[in-house]
Amino acid sequence: MQTKIILPEDRIPRQWYNIIPDMPGPLAPVIHPGTMQPVSPDDLLPLFPIGLIEQEVSMQRWIDIPQQVLDIYQLWRPSPVFRAHRLEKVLDTPAKIYYKYEGVSPAGSHKPNSAIPQAYYNKIFGTKRIATETGAGQWGSSISLACQMFGLECTVYMVKVSYNQKPYRKSMMQLWGANVIPSPSNQTHAGRAILAKDPDSNGSLGIAISEAVEDAASRDDTRYALGSVLNHVCLHQTIIGLEAKAQLEMVGDYPDVVIGCHGGGSNFAGIAFPFVADKANGNNVRVVGFEPASCPTLTRGVYAFDYGDTAKMAPVSKMYTLGHDFMPPGIHAGGLRYHGASPLVSQLVDAGIVEAKAVHQLACFEAAVQFSRSEGIIPAPESSHAIRGAIDEALLAKEEGKEKVILFNLSGHGHVDMAAYDDYFAGKLNDYDYPEEAISESLEHLPKVG
Amino acid sequence: MQTKIILPEDRIPRQWYNIIPDMPGPLAPVIHPGTMQPVSPDDLLPLFPIGLIEQEVSMQRWIDIPQQVLDIYQLWRPSPVFRAHRLEKVLDTPAKIYYKYEGVSPAGSHKPNSAIPQAYYNKIFGTKRIATETGAGQWGSSISLACQMFGLECTVYMVKVSYNQKPYRKSMMQLWGANVIPSPSNQTHAGRAILAKDPDSNGSLGIAISEAVEDAASRDDTRYALGSVLNHVCLHQTIIGLEAKAQLEMVGDYPDVVIGCHGGGSNFAGIAFPFVADKANGNNVRVVGFEPASCPTLTRGVYAFDYGDTAKMAPVSKMYTLGHDFMPPGIHAGGLRYHGASPLVSQLVDAGIVEAKAVHQLACFEAAVQFSRSEGIIPAPESSHAIRGAIDEALLAKEEGKEKVILFNLSGHGHVDMAAYDDYFAGKLNDYDYPEEAISESLEHLPKVG
Repeated sequence: MQTKIILPEDRIPRQWYNIIPDMPGPLAPVIHPGTMQPVSPDDLLPLFPIGLIEQEVSMQRWIDIPQQVLDIYQLWRPSPVFRAHRLEKVLDTPAKIYYKYEGVSPAGSHKPNSAIPQAYYNKIFGTKRIATETGAGQWGSSISLACQMFGLECTVYMVKVSYNQKPYRKSMMQLWGANVIPSPSNQTHAGRAILAKDPDSNGSLGIAISEAVEDAASRDDTRYALGSVLNHVCLHQTIIGLEAKAQLEMVGDYPDVVIGCHGGGSNFAGIAFPFVADKANGNNVRVVGFEPASCPTLTRGVYAFDYGDTAKMAPVSKMYTLGHDFMPPGIHAGGLRYHGASPLVSQLVDAGIVEAKAVHQLACFEAAVQFSRSEGIIPAPESSHAIRGAIDEALLAKEEGKEKVILFNLSGHGHVDMAAYDDYFAGKLNDYDYPEEAISESLEHLPKVG
Repeated sequence: MQTKIILPEDRIPRQWYNIIPDMPGPLAPVIHPGTMQPVSPDDLLPLFPIGLIEQEVSMQRWIDIPQQVLDIYQLWRPSPVFRAHRLEKVLDTPAKIYYKYEGVSPAGSHKPNSAIPQAYYNKIFGTKRIATETGAGQWGSSISLACQMFGLECTVYMVKVSYNQKPYRKSMMQLWGANVIPSPSNQTHAGRAILAKDPDSNGSLGIAISEAVEDAASRDDTRYALGSVLNHVCLHQTIIGLEAKAQLEMVGDYPDVVIGCHGGGSNFAGIAFPFVADKANGNNVRVVGFEPASCPTLTRGVYAFDYGDTAKMAPVSKMYTLGHDFMPPGIHAGGLRYHGASPLVSQLVDAGIVEAKAVHQLACFEAAVQFSRSEGIIPAPESSHAIRGAIDEALLAKEEGKEKVILFNLSGHGHVDMAAYDDYFAGKLNDYDYPEEAISESLEHLPKVG
């Protein structure tokens, strides 16, 4: 009984897939938060090295992965695809469930797929130091690892609720040599402004981004790095879907539905984009992102121009958003607590090419426990949203009596998140639906563009 | 630059290597703790299923791995061998350093290699429930996983110092459905006796074994499981060395020295025995176990008959021992805190076929940090003893100007052990050498046999 599908050496992708030339229309411009005019690549130079700026707007469909990046990718790539035989049996479903497992990286998630190339392009550009933010700590630990490997300094603004809930992730960053600062902090104007209003602020990804952007923009030797949302991050993550597609091909399968959890969009884009590409060629694969009901960007937000951060320092992009001053509750899936979304994913959702669904926290933990007990691997709370989605699809297939092929991305392991499982078993977690009026209110603050 | 060596499907071992027929002499008898006479296989039936008892004494060199075990092994096997290019560069050594990485299992260590077959043989024997003990929690989490997969109940007596220091491992066991009890507990005579003398006892592996053995022996539906020491455990772990040997062969290499950390002996035997087999054929590969200086069984203990547990309920074996009532200090490498050692490893050390060295905790953490920052993977504190050994060998090779090939076993990742790294960076950890008189004193209590 074959459970694991390993990509042979000679089929490992050596290029990332850039979806921009295959988008359903031109990209919306990115707007400068100061001038409210479209940014030029030059405007972005204080924040990013030229290599990444080029990728952000490239119209080239396939982009070579540098050899030094491939050398480090080897530590965990190609990652395995597993057939979830035991879960299928527990669910008594006619569906075949496959999952791509990204938890085998040294940081335990998919994030190093982009952290490594980001550090690489910064290194060759001459950057000495990276400033970044992190939610759950998966991005922060990954960029710390990447900076360590390329000899860059690294400062991470970590959302305070995660800093306190996930001390192990902080320790991983420190072990990999990074300086970790709980956000909001008193190190930046943006942080001090928040603390002045609310000294007990839990923080949010939007605030931490403001702090990191301010830090990077104010120092010549420093550039900013973002672990999700941006086009070049989605580009790097496509290695996930490219591998998965080749792996399913090895066993003669192709998915009817492709599933990822959705926060900023990076792991989702990674598994999804190579399959979205097939839709343009008439393939009717469904591609679905599962987001937390407590931070329902794609399902209850609007598709509009908004700031990427809370302090209005980051560029303004057209994306699904709940408003840049939306403050999500402190749910455990810290990596999914972002008011916005990848502009690329947003455009695809708006065009009806990609679907989005919201799921509740308790149902996600229930799915994670069922998965851990049948498949063995303990998922990160973020990834549990994708498992919930996959299980629901498999149960639907059972109802309909259909032999569906389901592929989902298991973006990380949960070994560092056991406190969240403890809370779940202790009955300390609740479901949360954001009140309509709170969303309406934060949507009133969207910037006026064009 | 090739970093990772993946074993192709058709070279995956389908048999374990049993070293018993190749030992340098007959095995010493195992003694019944009550009668002080050699045990018969029947005497062991209250503790183990017949399949494992047969393996414990088998003279068959190769033993088939059951298909149901191979099916689950696929989740993480074959595990990768990595060439540590970046570490070699940092050390500026002419040595080639290879490491076999067992942290890719769902429990994050090598322990499932034996937990899965142990649960399997219990299942087909009719066992309903497993009682076991765990030190650091790596064995406990692995047997919990294995019991969950084969539908067995599981109770784990967890050494109290680890129960408190490693709450995440406890949570993993609970997620996989096990009942976890801090040891010494008031659930058993053995536990209550210890608590009566010392209510604040930190516990030890010896005490926890007593509790688990008592639990298993007192219930018909329950059998005992041990994660190390015993012959059948070493047998199951040989999959590590068998794979590693085939992987090095793929790149045309063979080790000059093979290294593992040593506690009870399971991961060490796993990497070592397939190479020890070659020594009988005239190959002069060195095989070295690295143990903590704070629990120096192989380097400062005696080779003698002793109880496997503190309460003298477990069988008496001839092995290196510090005495069954030796109480190691609460160092973080909880998995290496055992007064005894595998009888097979002990016999090989006594015969001069295998070497043993003791290393201090601070030097091990230093090596672990150097490894994390160059290779990326964060090691478990236990595994850091092997890294220290490998780095020392590589530095020696540099001094001698020799192109040595070093292979070590990286038995687990440290994502669940970040608190230990925090303590190390905070300067809270010390080196510890057990005073000579304390060892002499506990050695006075060895049983008289034959």
